[in-house]
Amino acid sequence: MYYEMKYRVPYADTDQMGVVYYANYLEYFERGRTEMFRDAGMPYSRMESEGIIMPVSEANCRYFNSARYDDLLTFRSYVSEYSRVRIKICTEVLRDDLLLASGYVVLACVNREFKVTRLPQWMTRFCDKCLAPEGETK
Amino acid sequence: MYYEMKYRVPYADTDQMGVVYYANYLEYFERGRTEMFRDAGMPYSRMESEGIIMPVSEANCRYFNSARYDDLLTFRSYVSEYSRVRIKICTEVLRDDLLLASGYVVLACVNREFKVTRLPQWMTRFCDKCLAPEGETK
Amino acid sequence: MYYEMKYRVPYADTDQMGVVYYANYLEYFERGRTEMFRDAGMPYSRMESEGIIMPVSEANCRYFNSARYDDLLTFRSYVSEYSRVRIKICTEVLRDDLLLASGYVVLACVNREFKVTRLPQWMTRFCDKCLAPEGETK
Amino acid sequence: MYYEMKYRVPYADTDQMGVVYYANYLEYFERGRTEMFRDAGMPYSRMESEGIIMPVSEANCRYFNSARYDDLLTFRSYVSEYSRVRIKICTEVLRDDLLLASGYVVLACVNREFKVTRLPQWMTRFCDKCLAPEGETK
Repeated sequence: MYYEMKYRVPYADTDQMGVVYYANYLEYFERGRTEMFRDAGMPYSRMESEGIIMPVSEANCRYFNSARYDDLLTFRSYVSEYSRVRIKICTEVLRDDLLLASGYVVLACVNREFKVTRLPQWMTRFCDKCLAPEGETK
Repeated sequence: MYYEMKYRVPYADTDQMGVVYYANYLEYFERGRTEMFRDAGMPYSRMESEGIIMPVSEANCRYFNSARYDDLLTFRSYVSEYSRVRIKICTEVLRDDLLLASGYVVLACVNREFKVTRLPQWMTRFCDKCLAPEGETK
Repeated sequence: MYYEMKYRVPYADTDQMGVVYYANYLEYFERGRTEMFRDAGMPYSRMESEGIIMPVSEANCRYFNSARYDDLLTFRSYVSEYSRVRIKICTEVLRDDLLLASGYVVLACVNREFKVTRLPQWMTRFCDKCLAPEGETK
Repeated sequence: MYYEMKYRVPYADTDQMGVVYYANYLEYFERGRTEMFRDAGMPYSRMESEGIIMPVSEANCRYFNSARYDDLLTFRSYVSEYSRVRIKICTEVLRDDLLLASGYVVLACVNREFKVTRLPQWMTRFCDKCLAPEGETK
């Protein structure tokens, strides 16, 4: 499944080069994966109420084209892989069909004492729903 | 006492007009008052460890001239007044002697249950140290 | 006319008090007034292409209740008054019917040389559409 | 050469997990490399006045330990490699001797028309000054 959401670029996100400042894409990734998990039936707020925290252990972004003020962007997210204690989520940022940026975050599964812990089964079921369709991962 | 600190404007703070985005001045005010309190011997982290939280109940900023990328700004802060449950702090943002913006925040004194509570005496003593010198408040 | 839009609070907007950081409300105001102007037929991008820039000359926010992570907020905006060279826009931030914060910005009308200039007639017409209905301004 | 600068974490940078929000590290990287280039005699503002723009083409960060409110951080930056059209800059974020996060950005060299262009010789000289000492790159 790919999850897609729309986002309008405010002035706040731009910099003096006239384009979206590069760190903001990591905020975009957060918005994308949050809505993906919500859509799959697994909102972050529920994870946290069940004692699971998912801090980011790695983030990466490659920038191909600039997003600009007032652009209506698409954030397309999917789970690219997961292990017993980790989930890797990819997000692509597009304007119409043009790919502007693409990246991923790796989330670690930890409990309230910040110890690495196993993904509970109810979460792996939801992750399965968010995996990219076979042969379609970019 | 006026407390002054320096701050270098990063790309992150600018917008496509080529100037510092207006919401960032409220972040500047936070940096200014935090260092003022630290300098007076009353770091926020100590307030919070003593069970005092100081949420902002009002913020105001007037903008006179633009700050730009790479400017070395001065944040000048002082307590303009305080009551039994509230502190009003002014901050001016300058580049050299030019006033760029000026504003204030009103902080409410609340306890861990978010009930309004009286400023403890050790805090009012520190507030006195941060009052602007007689006749010099702008 | 009141213009209302929805906004979901990301992790990025919160601070360690567990609530939305106070400077972010000024970003919310920007999102609110941008969509209001677009809805009225006057997108910012058109203003700028016609040589009109609207820098903020004053911003104010009063905070009544906290917004939290994952809240679905409503931003309600309207023009409260305008003169020949200035527009005052109010925005209220609500969660369901609860007013969380309320504030305004004053925009100055300047041309490309940053000289104060008169609001063109096509803009005052749009401002009229965004005025709060008689007797309903809060 | 390693370039080191200090930075105090404001409330603005934290999120409701009580730690610095992950996207802010990319802002930290920007502050680190800007001061490194300034220290080497090559401020960004000069690059831009000479018609060179250095947009980020890739960013990466790995997170090992959390930074918290009021931490006094160290940003340690160096050029890890450069080619005719690209510079790779690493930044480490430390609290005292503890490594909190580590990452890099790749900057592309483009001219005012956003065409990839060769690094001018005066820039490669400065890059040489910022290379990590032999055998010490982490």
